[in-house]
Amino acid sequence: MIFASDNWAGAHPKVSAALATHSGGFSRGYGDSDLDRKVAQTFAEIFDHEVAVFFVGTGTAANALSLTLANRPGGVAFCHYASHAIEDEGGAPEYFTGGARLAKVEGRLGRMDPAALQASIDHHPAAFIHAGRPMAVSITQSTEIGTLYSLDDISAISAICRNEGLPLHMDGARFANALVALGTTPAEMTWKRGIDMLSFGATKNGCWCAEAIVLFDEAKATEMAFIHKRAAQLYSKSRFIAAQFDAYFEDGLWLENARHANALAARLAGHIRASRKLRLAWEPQANEVFAVIAKKEQERLAGKGAVFFPWHTPHEMEIAADEDICRFVTSFATTADMVDAFGELIG
Amino acid sequence: MIFASDNWAGAHPKVSAALATHSGGFSRGYGDSDLDRKVAQTFAEIFDHEVAVFFVGTGTAANALSLTLANRPGGVAFCHYASHAIEDEGGAPEYFTGGARLAKVEGRLGRMDPAALQASIDHHPAAFIHAGRPMAVSITQSTEIGTLYSLDDISAISAICRNEGLPLHMDGARFANALVALGTTPAEMTWKRGIDMLSFGATKNGCWCAEAIVLFDEAKATEMAFIHKRAAQLYSKSRFIAAQFDAYFEDGLWLENARHANALAARLAGHIRASRKLRLAWEPQANEVFAVIAKKEQERLAGKGAVFFPWHTPHEMEIAADEDICRFVTSFATTADMVDAFGELIG
Amino acid sequence: MIFASDNWAGAHPKVSAALATHSGGFSRGYGDSDLDRKVAQTFAEIFDHEVAVFFVGTGTAANALSLTLANRPGGVAFCHYASHAIEDEGGAPEYFTGGARLAKVEGRLGRMDPAALQASIDHHPAAFIHAGRPMAVSITQSTEIGTLYSLDDISAISAICRNEGLPLHMDGARFANALVALGTTPAEMTWKRGIDMLSFGATKNGCWCAEAIVLFDEAKATEMAFIHKRAAQLYSKSRFIAAQFDAYFEDGLWLENARHANALAARLAGHIRASRKLRLAWEPQANEVFAVIAKKEQERLAGKGAVFFPWHTPHEMEIAADEDICRFVTSFATTADMVDAFGELIG
Amino acid sequence: MIFASDNWAGAHPKVSAALATHSGGFSRGYGDSDLDRKVAQTFAEIFDHEVAVFFVGTGTAANALSLTLANRPGGVAFCHYASHAIEDEGGAPEYFTGGARLAKVEGRLGRMDPAALQASIDHHPAAFIHAGRPMAVSITQSTEIGTLYSLDDISAISAICRNEGLPLHMDGARFANALVALGTTPAEMTWKRGIDMLSFGATKNGCWCAEAIVLFDEAKATEMAFIHKRAAQLYSKSRFIAAQFDAYFEDGLWLENARHANALAARLAGHIRASRKLRLAWEPQANEVFAVIAKKEQERLAGKGAVFFPWHTPHEMEIAADEDICRFVTSFATTADMVDAFGELIG
Repeated sequence: MIFASDNWAGAHPKVSAALATHSGGFSRGYGDSDLDRKVAQTFAEIFDHEVAVFFVGTGTAANALSLTLANRPGGVAFCHYASHAIEDEGGAPEYFTGGARLAKVEGRLGRMDPAALQASIDHHPAAFIHAGRPMAVSITQSTEIGTLYSLDDISAISAICRNEGLPLHMDGARFANALVALGTTPAEMTWKRGIDMLSFGATKNGCWCAEAIVLFDEAKATEMAFIHKRAAQLYSKSRFIAAQFDAYFEDGLWLENARHANALAARLAGHIRASRKLRLAWEPQANEVFAVIAKKEQERLAGKGAVFFPWHTPHEMEIAADEDICRFVTSFATTADMVDAFGELIG
Repeated sequence: MIFASDNWAGAHPKVSAALATHSGGFSRGYGDSDLDRKVAQTFAEIFDHEVAVFFVGTGTAANALSLTLANRPGGVAFCHYASHAIEDEGGAPEYFTGGARLAKVEGRLGRMDPAALQASIDHHPAAFIHAGRPMAVSITQSTEIGTLYSLDDISAISAICRNEGLPLHMDGARFANALVALGTTPAEMTWKRGIDMLSFGATKNGCWCAEAIVLFDEAKATEMAFIHKRAAQLYSKSRFIAAQFDAYFEDGLWLENARHANALAARLAGHIRASRKLRLAWEPQANEVFAVIAKKEQERLAGKGAVFFPWHTPHEMEIAADEDICRFVTSFATTADMVDAFGELIG
Repeated sequence: MIFASDNWAGAHPKVSAALATHSGGFSRGYGDSDLDRKVAQTFAEIFDHEVAVFFVGTGTAANALSLTLANRPGGVAFCHYASHAIEDEGGAPEYFTGGARLAKVEGRLGRMDPAALQASIDHHPAAFIHAGRPMAVSITQSTEIGTLYSLDDISAISAICRNEGLPLHMDGARFANALVALGTTPAEMTWKRGIDMLSFGATKNGCWCAEAIVLFDEAKATEMAFIHKRAAQLYSKSRFIAAQFDAYFEDGLWLENARHANALAARLAGHIRASRKLRLAWEPQANEVFAVIAKKEQERLAGKGAVFFPWHTPHEMEIAADEDICRFVTSFATTADMVDAFGELIG
Repeated sequence: MIFASDNWAGAHPKVSAALATHSGGFSRGYGDSDLDRKVAQTFAEIFDHEVAVFFVGTGTAANALSLTLANRPGGVAFCHYASHAIEDEGGAPEYFTGGARLAKVEGRLGRMDPAALQASIDHHPAAFIHAGRPMAVSITQSTEIGTLYSLDDISAISAICRNEGLPLHMDGARFANALVALGTTPAEMTWKRGIDMLSFGATKNGCWCAEAIVLFDEAKATEMAFIHKRAAQLYSKSRFIAAQFDAYFEDGLWLENARHANALAARLAGHIRASRKLRLAWEPQANEVFAVIAKKEQERLAGKGAVFFPWHTPHEMEIAADEDICRFVTSFATTADMVDAFGELIG
């Protein structure tokens, strides 16, 4: 009963198989192989748009380099206070950008509130040099707490960005989970709604190590190529990432994996909803479920082999002192048996 | 006849198999899995020393983060003028260190000359704040041009480092090739000769993406952990690197691969030595062979399917205007047939 | 009626005279002149402690370099949300530190709340590499809104710092104003209460350009010397700063100037207290007075020649939509006539 | 007999007087005062061109921020190997740019050789991401060793820059000395010959602390304003720099001071030329004289009160082991008596 994180899983068998298939032969390094180019083309097809694609090894790198591309002296990026960039990247965005600031924006249920975003931007008037200047906005889809921005939510954020002349970045570490939950297209969830840069994550959804920065403005490709190389993210045998993506996109494996994970999250939520001991912290929308659990009960469940972790409590919630909000994550590797075994445990 | 680079190969079948084997199941992320720990222990055994090991995705990351650990305000690192850090890392060492300088040190045949190193260090007296201050020395083994530092060569460099209070880093992107060529032990080629930090490369020698920073002073581990995370090099599913290393070290695969590559380099050198059209630029000592080739002949060979590239001419050499020094690299994936086919071409 | 800022004044005549006096002759540059050394000695006497002193040109430099000295990979510094480092330094602290984060700590009336500080530190557990790690705490004395930390307030903060192993920095851009307001000694307000590093400002209190970083741990001097030089803050003719400090400390000019400024702030506060149109936002404790003023009234006052600016409203306060909290700053150059003329205007 | 450096002098009496004159009254801070604006206008008049002017405190800051403006990811700037940026700025250019590299270009007598520059640029082909990419060229006028680029020399460098699409920066720490030596105009020595950015130094030539970045492309002003603020170089009472420049430019004081210094350098060179014990290392062209002096003779001269320092020997020169090349610098404050006294000493 491992619900610790979607990165506790390994790789999907088809991804492993692709790595084996492509391990022979010789091909150009540093992103120039036929396979690299084929996958870049697949990205363009999936997004129905010309794109510049850069493979990176971690979601942190994808986020940090995207913000580096956007940054300028005195730059301030705006993120939800509980975003990965702020909570879990060890200062990488500030480091790679050479000292940009991440301004924390409030918002309920993991989503940036547009009014709070506008107020935060207004705190840094462009002509007032002392306060720094806005340089980008970054949202996470699905959010750190398993909720979603609706398409209209994204439009509301991007309208502000357009008005302020700011690029809009999406941290898509769980892009596929959001996509299938919304039942929309990659184009619709990104550039059609005003996204300029995307951290496209595949690691959590069935790959070993496959993340990509997707830029919808190809003119930025040259600049990003130097940022990417300088950041030690240009892999010599980059086709090992291409091979993973190749399998990931083949026959819709990525969507299938995401649907599987989301469905099991819903199933898990059902068990929790039915439990007298746990309660759902909020309705899950993708592959993460959050439940309020008494500390003693957490111990009991851990003793029975359930693996999950407490999480930060959102600003708008209050829980009792002897409780935590705990996170449960499902993935392509989670099984219904695992979920039901946990359900039995809390029944 | 692909001699372009050892990173044009894919992965050794045993490495691919290991990735498949470990792709199932769940385990802790971010370097905390059993497999990560097992591999770290293997490193300690191989080096016969307590070590702190950090997996990274590229040799550039390994070098840049090692120098970041060593750096201090105004810091200057000393590298051979033709080193990878200077020629091929897109400014990553300067970027990750926050602006350290790489001072170019002269030396014949790819090796730093100890007297030149001492003179370069002396150019930055510790008490003269204007010139910056020495912070590390970095050597490459085997060198960028396929030569070796003998054990005594390493000792000569490290004696200067000890005297100056400077840490000594080894860029071991081709560590295994040097090791088997010298017929020595990992311990002897590193800490016993004064190496403090090692970029241990496995990618070029049979892995997809497996590099490690090896610190012989475990007390530096905490500091490096933050440097590593902040640099976006802490992989969530880091066991995908561990799995590669696991196979790499199993039954001496790494040594076998290196011996194979070196032997084919020697065989290739034999063909070139025998050729009337090409001449060896210098005697190869590991898995890289350099030959002086007229530009017209290069075109002819390329037309016949031989893939190799011209290289920078070392400072101490002179060649004719219509010639280049060209590099040929062999790897675990190179075959004797390939080498002999090339031999026939130049016969 | 200029109350815009204490940096709208020029220099005190005695400071100008000192610059003229020392403009002749020759002496060593880069901080090595007799006058530089004499002033460094004066700092030691004033603080009754061995100190390392570094002259810098701006308070921003003093703050940013102090935090740079304290920083380490993944570092997070803790500052009051309305501090100068956060609101007015154009991102310099993040930039000079190479990407440290400034965490905003809450607290009423411009003072960091110890409990909020502890909670903010606890958000970054030392062993949890993902969140970054605490590296310093910075408080401002007098605060950005003209209030003071009592000596016990400072002790409460420094107790947390000692417990957490964090250095404590004081932004003393208005150090003298705080000192005379508290009626204490420099030693008591700093190292005796746990301050490790001080940005000592003299510019606002009668100098043209005289700021100093004061380190109470002399062992940090060598490291800071390189940080200082690398930051372009080592002046060739640094005795021009020394000369200003020499006059500043001579016969207690600095204390006299501060007392003058504070007294006029109190006088101004008296006028505001008596006014029916304005109300004091809070009781001033040093040389800054904050008043709640209707926007229309602000226009009327500006039309009559009063110069002052609206300020950010502290989190704990609420004002009407047609009002602002406005700041009035007095300095050595402010006159009682100026203050009384304003008093008449609002009577 | 102080010939140690032109920064061992203090300030010219007229500069001191200007500081006293402007020390009273109130005016806007942060570069917005009437005096700041007047001086900016004077710069435009002197250069006969619209300019954006930023006051900074040190020549190091002027150089480092100019290169920061020019830099881009992977950027390499090209400087003469003996330039101030490389030899004497403690790593500031690399630090402020966030890790740009300074490539050392060869050239006799302190001047960058155009062919060597072209070769160095060619070493970093724009499409080869691994080597970094050229971002700027910086020359020093007068050079670090007291020689000059003729106007045609500047044109030869700028022709390369234009062709390569690189901005050309001039380190004019001793701009006035070069200007009067060449007998040309500021416009002719800068933008008319292809200079894009200028570090305009006044400190060495009669001010306390007055340096300016002059941009001949006003469109860069907004970007530089944030770079300048973020670098802690925006002075609150910036009119203290403006006042110095105001006096400096008034009635041609700057040219007069430079002519005086140059004339005394020529006079000193005459004494050395006539001496049997010393010999001129090369013909001086501005206010620095270099002489080859035996170490024993240096001691004797020092014993008699002459202050000067040994310098790095240019690559193209050879001197005996018991000799040094020593530098003598004259300034507005040097007197003919001082020079003649030294002449007598070496007669």
